[in-house]
Amino acid sequence: MEWLLRQYKEQIEQQLPVYIESLRAPETIKEAMLYSLQAGGKRIRPLLLLATLHAFRKQVDIGIAVACGLEMIHTYSLIHDDLPSMDNDDLRRGKPTNHKVFGEANAILAGDALLTYAFQVVADAEAISPDVKVRLISELAKAAGPEGMVGGQVADLEGEGKMIHLQQLEYIHRHKTGKLLQYSVRAGAILGEATEKQLTLLTLFADHLGLAFQIRDDILDIEGDEQKIGKKVGSDIENDKSTYPSLLTLDGAKKKLYDHMKEARKLLDEVGVDASLLHYICNIVETRDH
Amino acid sequence: MEWLLRQYKEQIEQQLPVYIESLRAPETIKEAMLYSLQAGGKRIRPLLLLATLHAFRKQVDIGIAVACGLEMIHTYSLIHDDLPSMDNDDLRRGKPTNHKVFGEANAILAGDALLTYAFQVVADAEAISPDVKVRLISELAKAAGPEGMVGGQVADLEGEGKMIHLQQLEYIHRHKTGKLLQYSVRAGAILGEATEKQLTLLTLFADHLGLAFQIRDDILDIEGDEQKIGKKVGSDIENDKSTYPSLLTLDGAKKKLYDHMKEARKLLDEVGVDASLLHYICNIVETRDH
Repeated sequence: MEWLLRQYKEQIEQQLPVYIESLRAPETIKEAMLYSLQAGGKRIRPLLLLATLHAFRKQVDIGIAVACGLEMIHTYSLIHDDLPSMDNDDLRRGKPTNHKVFGEANAILAGDALLTYAFQVVADAEAISPDVKVRLISELAKAAGPEGMVGGQVADLEGEGKMIHLQQLEYIHRHKTGKLLQYSVRAGAILGEATEKQLTLLTLFADHLGLAFQIRDDILDIEGDEQKIGKKVGSDIENDKSTYPSLLTLDGAKKKLYDHMKEARKLLDEVGVDASLLHYICNIVETRDH
Repeated sequence: MEWLLRQYKEQIEQQLPVYIESLRAPETIKEAMLYSLQAGGKRIRPLLLLATLHAFRKQVDIGIAVACGLEMIHTYSLIHDDLPSMDNDDLRRGKPTNHKVFGEANAILAGDALLTYAFQVVADAEAISPDVKVRLISELAKAAGPEGMVGGQVADLEGEGKMIHLQQLEYIHRHKTGKLLQYSVRAGAILGEATEKQLTLLTLFADHLGLAFQIRDDILDIEGDEQKIGKKVGSDIENDKSTYPSLLTLDGAKKKLYDHMKEARKLLDEVGVDASLLHYICNIVETRDH
């Protein structure tokens, strides 16, 4: 199964620069967009989308454009999160962050450009009917905007340096990372012509997977290998940040991760499709070391 | 005619806060989005859209959502342009800029939120068929993104402090402000079911109008009344910025403004619709004092 996911990843990574190179725009902005798009990463969102399509026995080609749009939006969020006025990070995946290379103004604009272009890429996607596209665009904007990712980032900034409750921590993660992960699965299911019942099950599945993803992130900040992660570990404790381990202890966080993954897998088995690739992604999320 | 444009402006200004208040998002981000949306302004883009719809004898109601999306994107661009790493402006229309009130991180996020939400608003618009929506979204993203407004902003930053040619100046303005103004007219024409011929004429009309708009801006920075503009005049000369007056002399710029407006009006008369409101907007653009 791994070879198929690797093949999907290659397809995405081949297509992303094609989208950027086709732009008639100043070279600076194209370079800045491409720099962060090509800075590596697990491509978990595009892979979730394509793996869900695969589960519904559809040609994954019809999902490539939306998958690339998703990765552009994820990448824009990383560029803006790293800015001096936000997390002020100099390194991302072991490489200098966008504003360190292109300057702050260009980094803001590269983020704006990726966000905007993502919607164009989805709107211009081939082989998707207009009514499905409109739904995909509406849900993408909702998942990425103030009711989704941006709302989560605002809540995260507001919680900084404060002791927050588990409920608030879950709000932050459900929005900051959860909504876009959830969208990845929903977009695949919508393109796969899932029934409403299947869509509901997959949405719940993705909710558990998203929270598990974040808990694993928090655990890696304690137990991870700096070389593999590409950034310093221990920064959450250093920044006095509330995390699953800080609220539940490290063992409590591991138990919670296990519970979410168990629930996610159970829901997945209820969908009634060939979910082998999605199960494989579950294993990656649960055991990843970077 | 003025009363009709005033009525359209009121409709837009009533609808914008409704869109923001309906959001299930942290209060901070809603406040920051609303603050800049309600900071005044001529609403020239929404008015162009509705006036074009009016020219095709359509109910303007079908254009309100897209008009509000346009104003959200224009507003996001002002918030990001004012940031310390960009133009570093403390005042906008006589009021403190977004980052002065909400801090830099929230200002960046409020811009991101407005940009993203704009696409949701268009995708969720009522009474527009899916295929027209997809076209409107694709063109909006193109006008606002790296091939449009963002590309113009990048070129503007690159030209700072340098002596640039008239051709480069026109590239900057065609993209930084022109593309979105042009989209305003095109969106109205598309919703108004214009023929391809009419769409071409209106696109050219909007191109001349957009350049005229910018020339007037440059002239106001020399001759304008600080009270009316809501910011200091003379900043272009102070910042050694290339403008139409600096490249063509003040009289040369005025002549150029006159020529563009003459051409715009001529094209408008060729469209074969009731362009009275659009002519009225031409007068505003040519003689505005703020």
